[in-house]
Amino acid sequence: MDNVIKQLAVLGSTGSVGQQTLDVIRRFPHHFRIIGLAAASHADLLARQIEEFQPRYVYLQNRAAHLSDGGYKFLSMEDIACHPEVDTVVIATSGKSGLLPTIAAVTSGKNIALANKESLVMAGEIITTEARLSGAQILPVDSEHSAIWQCLNGETLPPARLILTASGGPFLHYPSAQLSEVTARQALKHPSWHMGRKITIDSATLMNKGLEVIEAHWLFNVPFEDITAVVHPQSIIHSLVEFSDGSAKAQLGYPDMRLPIQYALSYPQRLSNPQLPRLNWDNINQLTFEPLDTARFPCFQLAVEAGKKGGTYPAVLCAADEVAVTLFLSQRLRFTDIAPLIEWVLEQHQAVAHPTLNEIMAADAWARDKATQFGTGNKL
Amino acid sequence: MDNVIKQLAVLGSTGSVGQQTLDVIRRFPHHFRIIGLAAASHADLLARQIEEFQPRYVYLQNRAAHLSDGGYKFLSMEDIACHPEVDTVVIATSGKSGLLPTIAAVTSGKNIALANKESLVMAGEIITTEARLSGAQILPVDSEHSAIWQCLNGETLPPARLILTASGGPFLHYPSAQLSEVTARQALKHPSWHMGRKITIDSATLMNKGLEVIEAHWLFNVPFEDITAVVHPQSIIHSLVEFSDGSAKAQLGYPDMRLPIQYALSYPQRLSNPQLPRLNWDNINQLTFEPLDTARFPCFQLAVEAGKKGGTYPAVLCAADEVAVTLFLSQRLRFTDIAPLIEWVLEQHQAVAHPTLNEIMAADAWARDKATQFGTGNKL
Repeated sequence: MDNVIKQLAVLGSTGSVGQQTLDVIRRFPHHFRIIGLAAASHADLLARQIEEFQPRYVYLQNRAAHLSDGGYKFLSMEDIACHPEVDTVVIATSGKSGLLPTIAAVTSGKNIALANKESLVMAGEIITTEARLSGAQILPVDSEHSAIWQCLNGETLPPARLILTASGGPFLHYPSAQLSEVTARQALKHPSWHMGRKITIDSATLMNKGLEVIEAHWLFNVPFEDITAVVHPQSIIHSLVEFSDGSAKAQLGYPDMRLPIQYALSYPQRLSNPQLPRLNWDNINQLTFEPLDTARFPCFQLAVEAGKKGGTYPAVLCAADEVAVTLFLSQRLRFTDIAPLIEWVLEQHQAVAHPTLNEIMAADAWARDKATQFGTGNKL
Repeated sequence: MDNVIKQLAVLGSTGSVGQQTLDVIRRFPHHFRIIGLAAASHADLLARQIEEFQPRYVYLQNRAAHLSDGGYKFLSMEDIACHPEVDTVVIATSGKSGLLPTIAAVTSGKNIALANKESLVMAGEIITTEARLSGAQILPVDSEHSAIWQCLNGETLPPARLILTASGGPFLHYPSAQLSEVTARQALKHPSWHMGRKITIDSATLMNKGLEVIEAHWLFNVPFEDITAVVHPQSIIHSLVEFSDGSAKAQLGYPDMRLPIQYALSYPQRLSNPQLPRLNWDNINQLTFEPLDTARFPCFQLAVEAGKKGGTYPAVLCAADEVAVTLFLSQRLRFTDIAPLIEWVLEQHQAVAHPTLNEIMAADAWARDKATQFGTGNKL
C-alpha cells in the first residue's frame, strides 16, 4: 500500500466483526488510524478500545452505561459516518441499525466497508444510487461477497453468474422431524464460522444465504436469475463467479473474517499478514458440494422472492426475520416457525415500489409490529 | 471486444491445440483473421484448413506431402511468426519445434499465445528478456497457466505462491510393481484431457507437471520455492494462486482446451461462446486433492531440479524427455526407464549458465545424442 494512512470509523466496534476489524487495524498502524468508534453496548470493551485506539469521536447507544470522559467527543453514528476527517466507514453493526449510518456515509462520499447486509437488503436501490452520485465505493466485507469481488477484480465485462457457497449451517443433515425442537443453543453452534448471534441463527435457517443473494444483486448489479447458491460444508470456497466464456473463478481460504475485512480496508492492494491462515493442501482432501435444500430451509426462497419483488418487500423480510430471531433466541418461537412467521408477514404486506427511506422505515415498523403479533400468538 | 480484428498466425495448426484454436476462430469471424498457418505434417488436413481460412502464408514441414497451389505463399515458420501483417502468433507446435518461431515472434514484438511449453522451458530467460525489450506479451494457453493468469488479473502485487493442479494421469493409483509393464496405449488414455501424444505421455510420467513448474516460473516471475503442485483428479480446478494476505483464487471449468485458447486470444476481454461448457454444480459432488507422489513419478522432481539449476539443464531435460517419449511410444523403452534415462543424461551434462540460443541448441543436440545412446543400450 502507498503511504497514505486511511482514517477509519468503525461502527459496531464491540461486535464480532468490529473486534476483528480492530484486530486487523492493530497490526497495521502505518496504514490505518481510528477516528471514530461506535457501539450499541459493551461499555467496558468500548472503553478499552478507546484507550488503545484513541479515537476522536465515540458513540455508545446504551446511555445507561458509564463511559469515562477522555480525549474524545460523543457524536451520533450518522455524524461519525460522515465526519470530514473520516475516509472509510466500517459498518459492522447488526441488523437494521446499520441503515442510517450507511446512507449518511455514502451520501457524503465516504467509502464503506460493509459487513452489515441488512442495509443493502432494505435499501439497496437508495444506497447504490447515492454511492453512484457521490462516488463512494461500497467495499464488501461479507466473505461471500468479498470472494466475488476478488474474482471480479480486473475483469472487463459483467459476470454471467454468481454462485454463493453456503456452509449449510448446523442443521444441514439434521432429521427434518426434529427441526422443530432445536434449541437456540444448538442453532448458535455454527460448524465453520464464529459470528454474532443474529447472523448465526440466520445461517441455521439459511435466511442468511437468501439475504446474501439480495446483497449480491445490489453490490454487483447482477439479475436475481443469475445468482444461485450451492452448499459447501467445508466453507473453503467462499463463492464463485462464472463468466461469459464459461470460465469460473473462486476465492478460497479457511473461514476467518479478518481476511475479507483486511481486503476491504487494503483494496486494491493486499497486506502481508502472517496472522491470517494459509491453505494447507496436504490437509485438504476434498471439497464437497450439494444442492441447497429449499424445502427444509424455506427462508432462503422467501428472501430470494422478496428480493425479486423488490420495493419494500426486502425491508419487511428483514424486519420480520429480526423479530423472529429475537423470539427464537428467547424461546418464544420454535425454529420451524421462523419461516412461517416471515411468510405470514410478507403475505399481508402492501408493498411500495422504489420506496423512499421514510417508506422503508414505515414498512419496517409495520412488519415488526405484525411479526410481534405472530410471535405472541395474537395473529388473528 | 472492440472492433479491431486480430490477425493471427497458427503454428502447429493440424495438431490438437491447433485444431481447437481454429475451432474457436471459426466462431468469431469478426474478431479474428487467419494470416498464416503452419504444420509439420497432415497435408490433407492443412489443405482443408487453407481452403476454409484462406491464409496468405503457409508452411508445411513435410516437403514430400503434396499441397496444391492456391492464393497463398510458402514461408518458413519463423518468417510467418514475425510477418508484419501478423499481430498474434499461436504457438501450438509440439516439443522443440516451437522454439525458433517463438523467439522470432517475441523479438519482433508479436504477442504470442503460447501452448508449447518446451520453448519457455528451454529458453525462458531469452524469451522473457526479448519480450520485455520488444513489448511482446506472452499469453499462456496451457490450462494451468491460463488459470493462474486469470487469477492474477487485476492484482497489484506479485503472488505469494502458485499451486498447479495435476490430474495425476492414467497411472495415479496404478500398482507400482506393474508400472514397468504399462504400454503406450495405456499411457495414451488420459483420464480427463484429450491432447497430443507427447504431452499425454508427459502427463502419465508427471514430467508435464514439472515442465509446467518451469513454465510458471518464467511466465509469472515466481521463484521455484513458491511453486507447488497438488493432484486433483477431476481436473476442474485448473490451478490456484495464493496472495500475501493468505487469500487464494482458483480458476475452474470442465477440461476443454478451447477455453484457455479463447481467453488468450480475447484477453483482456472474454467472448461469449455457447459451445464452451458451463460448470453444473448439481453434478459436481466433490473435488478431491492428494499430494503428488514424487517417488512413484520421479520425472516431476527431475524437472523442478533442472529448473532450479537453470542454465542449459532445462534444455537437456526437454531433449532427453523428447527422445525418451519417442522411444517409449515405439516400444523401445519401458515406462519406468523414462526417468532413469533423463536422469542419466542430466547427470553427465556440463551446463552453461545464462546460455545463448546457440548454446541451448548445442545442449539440446548433445542431450538427444546421449539419450539415444541410453535408449539403444549403448550407454557405457
